[in-house]
Amino acid sequence: MQQWDLLITNVHLARMTAGAYGELPDGAIAVRAGRIAWLGPRADTAAAGTALEERDGAGCWLTPGLVDCHTHIVHAGNRSDEFEARLNGATYEDISRAGGGIMSTVRATRAASEDELLRQSLPRIASLLAEGVTTIEIKSGYGLDLASEAKMLRVARRVGEALPVRVATTFLGAHALPPEFAGNGDGYVDAVCAMIPALVDEGLVDAVDAFCERIGFTNEQTARVFDAARAYGLPVKLHAEQLSDQQGAQLVARCHGLSADHLEHLSEAGIAAMAASGTVAVLLPGAYYFLRDTTPPPVAALRAAGVPMAVATDNNPGTSPMTSLLLAMNMACTLWRLTPQEALAGCTVHGARALGLADDIGTLEVGKRADFALWRIARPADLSYAIGFNPCAAVVNGGVWREPAVKAAA
Amino acid sequence: MQQWDLLITNVHLARMTAGAYGELPDGAIAVRAGRIAWLGPRADTAAAGTALEERDGAGCWLTPGLVDCHTHIVHAGNRSDEFEARLNGATYEDISRAGGGIMSTVRATRAASEDELLRQSLPRIASLLAEGVTTIEIKSGYGLDLASEAKMLRVARRVGEALPVRVATTFLGAHALPPEFAGNGDGYVDAVCAMIPALVDEGLVDAVDAFCERIGFTNEQTARVFDAARAYGLPVKLHAEQLSDQQGAQLVARCHGLSADHLEHLSEAGIAAMAASGTVAVLLPGAYYFLRDTTPPPVAALRAAGVPMAVATDNNPGTSPMTSLLLAMNMACTLWRLTPQEALAGCTVHGARALGLADDIGTLEVGKRADFALWRIARPADLSYAIGFNPCAAVVNGGVWREPAVKAAA
Ligand SMILES: [Zn+2]
Ligand SMILES: [Zn+2]
Repeated sequence: MQQWDLLITNVHLARMTAGAYGELPDGAIAVRAGRIAWLGPRADTAAAGTALEERDGAGCWLTPGLVDCHTHIVHAGNRSDEFEARLNGATYEDISRAGGGIMSTVRATRAASEDELLRQSLPRIASLLAEGVTTIEIKSGYGLDLASEAKMLRVARRVGEALPVRVATTFLGAHALPPEFAGNGDGYVDAVCAMIPALVDEGLVDAVDAFCERIGFTNEQTARVFDAARAYGLPVKLHAEQLSDQQGAQLVARCHGLSADHLEHLSEAGIAAMAASGTVAVLLPGAYYFLRDTTPPPVAALRAAGVPMAVATDNNPGTSPMTSLLLAMNMACTLWRLTPQEALAGCTVHGARALGLADDIGTLEVGKRADFALWRIARPADLSYAIGFNPCAAVVNGGVWREPAVKAAA
Repeated sequence: MQQWDLLITNVHLARMTAGAYGELPDGAIAVRAGRIAWLGPRADTAAAGTALEERDGAGCWLTPGLVDCHTHIVHAGNRSDEFEARLNGATYEDISRAGGGIMSTVRATRAASEDELLRQSLPRIASLLAEGVTTIEIKSGYGLDLASEAKMLRVARRVGEALPVRVATTFLGAHALPPEFAGNGDGYVDAVCAMIPALVDEGLVDAVDAFCERIGFTNEQTARVFDAARAYGLPVKLHAEQLSDQQGAQLVARCHGLSADHLEHLSEAGIAAMAASGTVAVLLPGAYYFLRDTTPPPVAALRAAGVPMAVATDNNPGTSPMTSLLLAMNMACTLWRLTPQEALAGCTVHGARALGLADDIGTLEVGKRADFALWRIARPADLSYAIGFNPCAAVVNGGVWREPAVKAAA
C-alpha cells in the first residue's frame, strides 16, 4: 500500500503517451512529493494506496498541464496603435517613420523598470494559466544590450515566483539589430556572444535562440551564437524558415538543438535533418494568422517524417498578440489540419520536449511532475474544437490543487 | 442638481456615437432607474448631481455593453467528434452516412429536455458574458417542429432570467429541412409559417430569420416566411449570400428587414438595396475562419455605401463553435480589414440596430439603458488587437454593477 499526498478520482485520464491520447476512462491519479506516484482505473485505487487528501474530479478529463513552449510574453507596451494605424491605411513605412515596429517595443522594454515590466506581463501570463498552462517558455530579445536582456530574464524568473507556473528562460539576444549597431550585424553578434557568460553566471539562461532570417541574422551569424551557447553547455533553438529558407533547421539539427520554430518555408532537406536529430518542430499559428500568411508549414511532410510537432502561442506584441494556447490549438487544426490529438500532444508531450523537459513533464506517467489540468469536456477533441472557450475546471501544479486555475490578475 | 442611483467616475468613455469612438477621457457616467441620466467630464460631476452609490472606475475604458446580434447558442451536444473525424481524413459524405452534420444537432436538441438544453447552453453564454456582452440574440432552428422550436425559444427566454443578459429571440424555423419533410421544401415552409401564430401567442418571438441558400430555402420560400412574419408585425432578418448570391439582401431590404447576415457573396445590387433600406450587414468571421472560406464579404464596398456593419459570433456547433465576441472583433479586423473602431461599433451601436434596439442600447447617451462594460486597456483598439485576452474588469446591466462580469458556469 502506497501513502499519497493527494488522490484525484472520478477523472478520465489522457496520458498523452505513445502517439495517442492514452485514454484511461474512469481513472484516478495519485501524487506524492509533487510527483505522480500512481495512476490507474478508479476501481483499483483502494488496493493501491491511501491519500491524505482526496479530490473528486467530477467526471472531468485530466491531462498533463499545458506547455506553451515559445513566447515573448515579457515585454512593455503593446502595438495596438500600429494595428489600428495600419487598418486605417498607414503603410509599414509610415509606421516605421513614426518610430513603430519592433524598436518601439525595445524602447519601451528598455525604459521599464523590472517591477514595471513584471506588472505589465503578469496579466498576459495569467490569461495563459487560466487555461491550464503549467509551464511556459519566456524569451528575452527586446533589450538587445546586456543590462536590458538581463532585466527581461530576471523578470521571467520572477514570473515563476509570482504565479503558479514553471518558467523556462531563453536568451534571444540575436532577435533584432539594435540602433547602436546599425549596419554592423557581425559586431552585434560578437556582443551577443559576449553577453552569455554574465547571464549564465546569474543563472538566467535555460536555452539560447536566434532569429535566422534575411531581416534578422544569417545562418553563419546564428552558428556563432550557437557555438557560444554550446561552449556553456546551453541547448539551442531557432526562429527558422519563417519568411524564407535559410537552412536554419539544418543548423539546429547539426547542433542537436531542441527545436526549430515557425518553419513555413522549411525544405525537404530541413525536414530530413530534423527527423534525424530528433529536433522538435514548433508550430506558431498565431503569427501566421495575424500576419495573414498564406504559406503553411509542411505539416503533412513533418508528420510523414516522424518529426515531433509542438504548438505554441508565440505571444509577442508585433506578430502574435495571442494569450490563449487553446486557441493556438484550434488554429493549428483549422488552418493547418493538425488533428486534435496532434494539437494536444503539441501542447503537452512535444511542448515539453521542445524545452528539454520531456523527462519531467508533458505526459501522465509515474515519476513525472504532478502538473495537471482538469477540463469540463466530453472528449479531448473539445479542447481543439472550441474557439474562445475555457473549460478548465482546476489546475494542479507540482501536486498543489488550484481552482480556478489562476485568479485574474488586477 | 440631479439625484442618481449610481455614479461611475475615473473612466474614459467611448460613447460610440457619430461614427467614431466618441471618446470622453477622464469622464464620469451616472445612472438613474436603470438608464443613463448624465455623462460628462469628471470635473463636472459635483455640479451636476449626487449619487447614492459611487464607483471608482480605476482608469478603465467604459463602453456600451457588447451586443452579440447573431447566435445559435442554445443547442444540445457539440460536433467535436465530426471535427476530429474530418481532420483524421473522414469526408463530409462519411460523416453524413454516420448521422453527422446539422441533423445530429437537431436530434440532440429535440431529445433534450428544456432544463437540459438550458444547462448545456449556459456555460457558452457565460463565456460571452465574461467578456462584457450584455445583450445576445438567440435563434431557434434545431427543433424544426413546433414543439421543439418552442422549447428552444423558451430556453432562450430562460437564459435571460438565469444570467445577467438581455436576450432577443429569433425564430429560425426555416433553417434546414427536417427528415419528416425530405423532398418537400414547400410543404415545410407551409409548416414554418403555420408555427408563427402559436409562438407569437406565447411571446417567444422578437424577429424571424431564414437560411436562404441552395442548400437551404429559395428566395421565394423565404419571401413566404417573411410575409407570414410581417402579418404578425415581426421584423425579419436573413442568412443571406453566404455560399452563393440568392438575392437575399434585396429581399430583406424590400421587407425593411433588420439585417442581412454573412454576405460573402453579396452583389453590388444587394449592397445598394441594403444602403437604401438601412439594413444592417451582420459580419460573421467565425464561420468564415472555421470553414476556411476564401471569399470575404465586400467590406470596402459596404463601407463606401454607408451600410452599417455589425460583427457577431454566429455561435453554432457546425460552422462557428466560437464563444468570444472579442475574438470575432479581432477576426473582422485581421481577416477582413475592419478598423478597430468599426469592429467595436459592430458589437455596440450597429449590433443593437441589427436587433431593432438602437433606441435602447448600443451607445452611451442619456436615456439609454445603463448597460456598460469596463475594460483594463490603454485604448479602445486594444479590444480588437488582442487575441484570446479578456480585459473586462466589470459589467453594468441595467444599472447593476457586477464584478467580475459573470461567474464561470459550473
Ligand atoms: Zn518567436
Ligand atoms: Zn447563423
